[in-house]
Amino acid sequence: MDGPQRRIDKLTSILDVAKAMVAQRDLDALLRMIVREAGRVVDADRCSLFLVDREEKVLYSKVAQGMGPSPRIRVPLGVGIAGATARTRRPINLPDAYADSRFNRAVDLSTGYRTTSLLCVPMFNTDGDVAGVIQALNKAGGVPFSDEDEELLLALGGQAASAVENALLHEEIHQLFEGFVKASVVAIESRDSTTAGHSERVARLTLALADAVERDGRGPFAGIVFSPDQRMELRYAALLHDFGKVGVREHVLMKANKFHPHELTLVEHRFDYARKSFEAESLRRQRDRLAAGERLDPVLMDEEAILSAKLRELEAARELVRRCNRPTVLPAGISAPLAQLAALSFLGPDGLPQTLLSAQEVELLSIPKGSLSPAERLEIESHVSHTYRFLKQIPWTRSLRRIPEIACGHHEKLDGTGYPLGKAGQEIGLEARMMAIADIYDALTVSDRPYKRSVSHDDALEILSADVRSGKLDAEVFRVFVEADVPRRFLEDGEERTAERAAAR
Amino acid sequence: MDGPQRRIDKLTSILDVAKAMVAQRDLDALLRMIVREAGRVVDADRCSLFLVDREEKVLYSKVAQGMGPSPRIRVPLGVGIAGATARTRRPINLPDAYADSRFNRAVDLSTGYRTTSLLCVPMFNTDGDVAGVIQALNKAGGVPFSDEDEELLLALGGQAASAVENALLHEEIHQLFEGFVKASVVAIESRDSTTAGHSERVARLTLALADAVERDGRGPFAGIVFSPDQRMELRYAALLHDFGKVGVREHVLMKANKFHPHELTLVEHRFDYARKSFEAESLRRQRDRLAAGERLDPVLMDEEAILSAKLRELEAARELVRRCNRPTVLPAGISAPLAQLAALSFLGPDGLPQTLLSAQEVELLSIPKGSLSPAERLEIESHVSHTYRFLKQIPWTRSLRRIPEIACGHHEKLDGTGYPLGKAGQEIGLEARMMAIADIYDALTVSDRPYKRSVSHDDALEILSADVRSGKLDAEVFRVFVEADVPRRFLEDGEERTAERAAAR
Ligand SMILES: [Fe+2]
Ligand SMILES: [Fe+2]
Ligand SMILES: [Fe+2]
Ligand SMILES: [Fe+2]
Repeated sequence: MDGPQRRIDKLTSILDVAKAMVAQRDLDALLRMIVREAGRVVDADRCSLFLVDREEKVLYSKVAQGMGPSPRIRVPLGVGIAGATARTRRPINLPDAYADSRFNRAVDLSTGYRTTSLLCVPMFNTDGDVAGVIQALNKAGGVPFSDEDEELLLALGGQAASAVENALLHEEIHQLFEGFVKASVVAIESRDSTTAGHSERVARLTLALADAVERDGRGPFAGIVFSPDQRMELRYAALLHDFGKVGVREHVLMKANKFHPHELTLVEHRFDYARKSFEAESLRRQRDRLAAGERLDPVLMDEEAILSAKLRELEAARELVRRCNRPTVLPAGISAPLAQLAALSFLGPDGLPQTLLSAQEVELLSIPKGSLSPAERLEIESHVSHTYRFLKQIPWTRSLRRIPEIACGHHEKLDGTGYPLGKAGQEIGLEARMMAIADIYDALTVSDRPYKRSVSHDDALEILSADVRSGKLDAEVFRVFVEADVPRRFLEDGEERTAERAAAR
Repeated sequence: MDGPQRRIDKLTSILDVAKAMVAQRDLDALLRMIVREAGRVVDADRCSLFLVDREEKVLYSKVAQGMGPSPRIRVPLGVGIAGATARTRRPINLPDAYADSRFNRAVDLSTGYRTTSLLCVPMFNTDGDVAGVIQALNKAGGVPFSDEDEELLLALGGQAASAVENALLHEEIHQLFEGFVKASVVAIESRDSTTAGHSERVARLTLALADAVERDGRGPFAGIVFSPDQRMELRYAALLHDFGKVGVREHVLMKANKFHPHELTLVEHRFDYARKSFEAESLRRQRDRLAAGERLDPVLMDEEAILSAKLRELEAARELVRRCNRPTVLPAGISAPLAQLAALSFLGPDGLPQTLLSAQEVELLSIPKGSLSPAERLEIESHVSHTYRFLKQIPWTRSLRRIPEIACGHHEKLDGTGYPLGKAGQEIGLEARMMAIADIYDALTVSDRPYKRSVSHDDALEILSADVRSGKLDAEVFRVFVEADVPRRFLEDGEERTAERAAAR
């Protein structure tokens, strides 16, 4: 046995490693750290680590020195040296592995390695369960592993068990959080089936654009680096950018024409009523003229002419309403007939004259483009402030604290014409500039309204480039978006819409 | 200095503690463990621990032996012994604390303690930053703390720094997850403003009921214990039980009467049209009779009688529609007039006879109770399967894996008449039985529909008890709900609706 000072040094170094292990929450990096330090502590040539999967009663390995990055060996509990260690809960210390029948030479055969001495110890967690095993091969100097090695490796293994369970728990909670966020985004998008998947696609496009900006590194992007934390922040901001749509009423969200279907039906019914009302007026005049002694034929002839003129006017008005109801750009010179239409009146159910269309209805039909009234447009735009209020309530960790700000900049324009804050120029951060381009590209290339055809890739770039020329979108970010061919690289990600998009192009 | 074996033993014991610290993710319990072990390692009479708040540049303490459970001392960096240790990053080892001007005797004065020897060391995290300090008082035997004590306490402090940062991170992620869940529940409830807060209240009621069931321990509840993990599972299940309402369309969710307002308007317009149509028919007959040579007066008299009979019939029908449209229980003997109403016809805009109400409209008006058609009732009930599909997508950790099952049992009934699965008796777990009672109680005592008055506490218990008698709800769970006065204890929680509920009672 070595001197006590050497042992004290080893224990002290295990303490240092233990501390570092707890701070390492990335499981793969942690496992690499453990095998490296295990090798150092017992002066082994190689080490490997197996974790116990209690559900499936197997050991699995994610790191083994000398076996490439991700060996993924699976061994049933009880089988081989590692399996025996896990089952018996006792260290196995062999001066010559080949002399032990439990040793499986297959690994040596496949790697060309030659194992002689072998030390395998269980990693006990704080509940006293075996969380895994550490296996050390070929002690330096060709001697067998000592009792002290056994003891030190057991100590290291115990620390490792705690650290690994901790990292696994972290990974689980992260997956739980991410899973919940994604599922709730999907649930909210399901209200408006035509935007399904939009948020996830905007997140992918934005992250791909961030990669491209970082790689580009020219001009304003010199030295731009997105850390893993910043990427995570950007990803959640993009996933959640339209979350506030849950606060916009469905009939506004899904409005296809200027009138809702039932509003159009109501107007049609009013036209029918007016028609019947004109007819009744005419019949009343006919009766009165006959009662006053006039002859039938001339009365019928007069009244027929008057009524059919009225009805022609009415049907022309009905046609005009149907045309103006569509969300397409209003034809030039249509405002005069619309104004005229507003003046048409008939006798209503209360016996008083009323106009065929209310002032509000005429205003709605006069919307020059799209289907939304100014109030409805504001309601749609309010999705950003709903997103903001939602995101602001959440106790983000330090590294995610800018999520509300980034998410809520996606409709801001560099020239200050965006919403909700009308931010301009430098007030809009790089993340929001990137997200704005990703958002518009996806909205254009997907048919997000039943009446709206999707636009081809090239046409979408043309529309974006017009927004760049008019000073709304960032020219440099757009240059990278195009040069790095971000949307197509994103498509190569194995996105299910590839075929659909290809067809649209 | 003690012998090397003693040092080896101490180091080994620090390793054991380090492992246990990592596994302890409850911060307060962890801090208590650290001061206890610190005292043991350096043979001190008392220990305390301060953490650094980097934002505010202060040290704060959550544990100090001999100072009650939660001392919450705050010291600016640089002030006192602890502050000096944190600022200079060096241990301070005093044989007699009172001889050092930095020592603050105020704490001794307030606790009646007499400090002599004192050892204070920084807790370095893996980045080399000071995460806090550990202070040990009064070494056993009245001697000063040794160099070895200093070294051991530094080692323990380093492990503690890692473990504390880890526990803080866990707490943060848990708060982030919980915050996100709560905020998204609030966002979804905001669609139907009248159910705001329902999920949070059901969660509180259910947890309070679980406490009461555990305390009761009688009959079927003997040995029932809810672990902290099970409580968390139950709480999330209750918070999320109605999440699937996001998949139910607003106009169904918020339906007040049998006809939607615009549907009623349409029916009223049809009645107006029919009235005008009857009038036009009458005028046509008058004209024709005059043209055939009849005298005006008898014609007017006849037609007046015919038309006014028609119009009386029409207005009676209109009144009947208005009455039947309400969601209250239909009066007995109303189905005959409703059927008659369906037979009334008039000449429609296309000149053909049409009925005043469609078969579908008559069916809707014939709903014996409530405002929902069978299809709409199914859509409302589909919220449970939407909740299930949503929850099933989420990668819950092992300890939360029953959330989908628990959440989706809240409308099942013991007699098998519930939904979505029509489970009966023992198929329905205790958690779902508790949640069912909490859910109904809250729905009854809050006015969740504009037309629906909320019910008093006593009336709600009477309604629940009728459901128990008819074999739908669990009698024992309901007994505990009443005996432990769960809703009122829950009200005493400082719920904002206390006043409102008191008024309703
Ligand atoms: Fe948006
Ligand atoms: Fe968007
Ligand atoms: Fe429900
Ligand atoms: Fe509910």
